[in-house]
Amino acid sequence: MQKIKLSTIGEALGVSTATVSLALRDSPLVAEATKQRVKAYANEIGYIYNRRAASLRTSKSGIIGVVVHDIMNPFYAEILRAIETELDRSGQTFLLSNHYDSVEKQRAFLETLMQLGADGVIMSPAIDTPTSDIELGIRNGLPFVFIARSVEGVDIPVFRGDDAFGIGLATNHLISLGHTRIAMIGATDQTSTGRDRYRGYREAMEKAGLPVRPEWRIPGPRTKAAGFEAASQFLALRDRPTAAVCWNDLVAIGLMNGIARAGLTPGVDISVTGYDDLEEASIATPALTTVWNGQRDVGRDAARALLDRIEGKKSLKGTLHLIRPELHIRQSTSQPVEE
Amino acid sequence: MQKIKLSTIGEALGVSTATVSLALRDSPLVAEATKQRVKAYANEIGYIYNRRAASLRTSKSGIIGVVVHDIMNPFYAEILRAIETELDRSGQTFLLSNHYDSVEKQRAFLETLMQLGADGVIMSPAIDTPTSDIELGIRNGLPFVFIARSVEGVDIPVFRGDDAFGIGLATNHLISLGHTRIAMIGATDQTSTGRDRYRGYREAMEKAGLPVRPEWRIPGPRTKAAGFEAASQFLALRDRPTAAVCWNDLVAIGLMNGIARAGLTPGVDISVTGYDDLEEASIATPALTTVWNGQRDVGRDAARALLDRIEGKKSLKGTLHLIRPELHIRQSTSQPVEE
Repeated sequence: MQKIKLSTIGEALGVSTATVSLALRDSPLVAEATKQRVKAYANEIGYIYNRRAASLRTSKSGIIGVVVHDIMNPFYAEILRAIETELDRSGQTFLLSNHYDSVEKQRAFLETLMQLGADGVIMSPAIDTPTSDIELGIRNGLPFVFIARSVEGVDIPVFRGDDAFGIGLATNHLISLGHTRIAMIGATDQTSTGRDRYRGYREAMEKAGLPVRPEWRIPGPRTKAAGFEAASQFLALRDRPTAAVCWNDLVAIGLMNGIARAGLTPGVDISVTGYDDLEEASIATPALTTVWNGQRDVGRDAARALLDRIEGKKSLKGTLHLIRPELHIRQSTSQPVEE
Repeated sequence: MQKIKLSTIGEALGVSTATVSLALRDSPLVAEATKQRVKAYANEIGYIYNRRAASLRTSKSGIIGVVVHDIMNPFYAEILRAIETELDRSGQTFLLSNHYDSVEKQRAFLETLMQLGADGVIMSPAIDTPTSDIELGIRNGLPFVFIARSVEGVDIPVFRGDDAFGIGLATNHLISLGHTRIAMIGATDQTSTGRDRYRGYREAMEKAGLPVRPEWRIPGPRTKAAGFEAASQFLALRDRPTAAVCWNDLVAIGLMNGIARAGLTPGVDISVTGYDDLEEASIATPALTTVWNGQRDVGRDAARALLDRIEGKKSLKGTLHLIRPELHIRQSTSQPVEE
C-alpha cells in the first residue's frame, strides 16, 4: 500500500499540511466546516491519522524504552536526563520503567515494548536477568544497549564506568593519607558493579600490604537511609576503622549524617569517600570526596549508540565501553586522628 | 471485524493459548515447527499479534502518560512511585516525560499520547500552560488528572496538598518558638503552588502582627544547589532574620549546608523549616522540621481517579482534592539565640 501523506490531502483540498494535521486531530483551531471536509476526504482515500496505524506501515514506532533499577536514585536520574536530551533531539518518545531488580517486572516491560514495536531499549539489567529474556528480545527485533551493568553470556554493548579502577582511586587516596583500617560500606555481590567495586577495594588494600577483614565490609546499603543506619554498625566495630569507602554518594552522605548524629565529625574523626559525584556531593557537609563516574557521558553515549543502530549507521557489537572515573578530593577525607 | 482471540487459534490447532502467544512472539521456548504452524494459521485467518494493531480494534491502548516538571526532584519521584504502584496493579504501561516547564515540550508529549491513543494522562502542568492545550486533549478523548498544580479555566480534577495551610503550620511553629524576623526562601509567583505558599507565610506573619519585609523574601530556589547558594544572600541580610521558611526540603537542606559552610550551626543559630518531608528530611544534619505533603497519597489518589475514569466507574469533574498537610517537628528549629 502506498503511503498517503498529509500533504497529499492538503494539496487536493487546497489547505496547508498543518491545517490537515490539526483537522484530523479535531483541533479547535480549525473551522468545523474545514474539519468535516478534511476528514471526509481522508476517509475516502483510506488515510488513518494515527501513529499506531502509521507504525504498522513503517518499520519504526518512534518509541524507545528505558528501564533501570530505580529512577528515584539520582545516579540513574542523571543518566536518564542525558538519555532524554539525546532522544529529544531525534524526536523519539521515551518510555520509562523501574524494575526494582525484579526480573518479572523487567520482563513485563520488555514484552510491552515488543508488543508496541519499540525501536530499541536502553537498560540497566535487573539482578539475575536470564540470557533467554535478552535473546527473546533480540529474536523479536528489539535492539538493546546496556548501561551501568552487564549480563554474562549475551553480546550487547555496555556503557559504564570502570568500577574496579574507580574504587581503587578512592581507596588509594585514603591509604596515601595514612589510613590503614578502611571499611567498605554498601555494594552487593549480585551485580557486576558490586563485584567489580569490591575487587577494586580489596586489590588496593592488598597491594599496600593492608589487611582486609571480613567485619570491615558492610554489604547492602545503597540509599541515604541505609547509609545512615549503617553508621551505628560501623561505629560499633571493634578496632574501628578510621575511614570508609562507600558504595555511592547516597550511602556516603547518609553515613556522614549518622556519624554526625553520634557526635563525631565526619571528615575529621572518620574519613568518608563516595562514588558518582552527584550534584549534591559538593554541597554536602562536609563536601564529599568522591569518584566521578561519568553518568552524563554514559547516558549520552548509550542513547547515541542506540540511535545510530536504529538508523542503520553502524552495528554495535558486545563491546564494553568503559568511562574512566576521576577522583574529586574535597573535605570529607583527611589524615587519621592520632590515637 | 470480529476480534480474533489467541484461544481461537489455540483451539483450532490443539495447543495452549500461552503457546500461541509465545509462538507469535517468536519465543525460543516454542519448537520451530509449532511456531510455523501457529504463524501460518494466524496469517490465514488475518490475525495480527501486535498491540498497536489490537488497539485499533479496541478503545483502550493500555498506556497512561505521566508528565511532570522534573523526575530528578525527589518530590515528584515519590509521587511517581505511588502512581506506578497503582498502574502496575491494573497492568497499565507508564509513559513518562519531563517538561522542565516548557509548554512546547509538554505539548509534544500530549500530542504523542493522542497519536498513540493513550487512555489518559496524569500531569503537573507546566507554568503558563494554555487552556487550549488541555481542551485539545479533551476533544481528542484524552482524560486528564492534575497533580500538585492546577490550570485556571479548565474543569480537571486536581490532587494536591493545601499549600497555604501547610506553610502556615511551619511559619506559626517558628513564631511560637519566639522568632519575629522570618525569611521565606524559594517559591515563585508563576505557579499556583508558589502563590499559595507565599500567601500562607504572609498571612501567618500578619496575623501574628509581625512585619513582612520584601528583602526577607528570596524567590527562585527549588533545588539543594540553589538553597546552598541562597545561604550567602540570607546571611548577608541587614537586621538578619533568625529563621527561614523554605520552599521545600531540598532548598532547606541546601540552605542548612550553606549555613554550616559559613561556620554557623543550623537549628541553633538559624532555624530552618522544609516542605514535603522527603525520605531524607529525617536523616539530615540536623534532622529537618518540615511539612508532610502527602506525596504518596497524591500519587495513589490521582492514579486511582484516572483508572476509575477509564473504567467508566465515575466521571470526575473539576473537583479540588486537597491533602491536609502535617507539621513534623525535628531538630532544625529552636528558640532564637539571645542577642
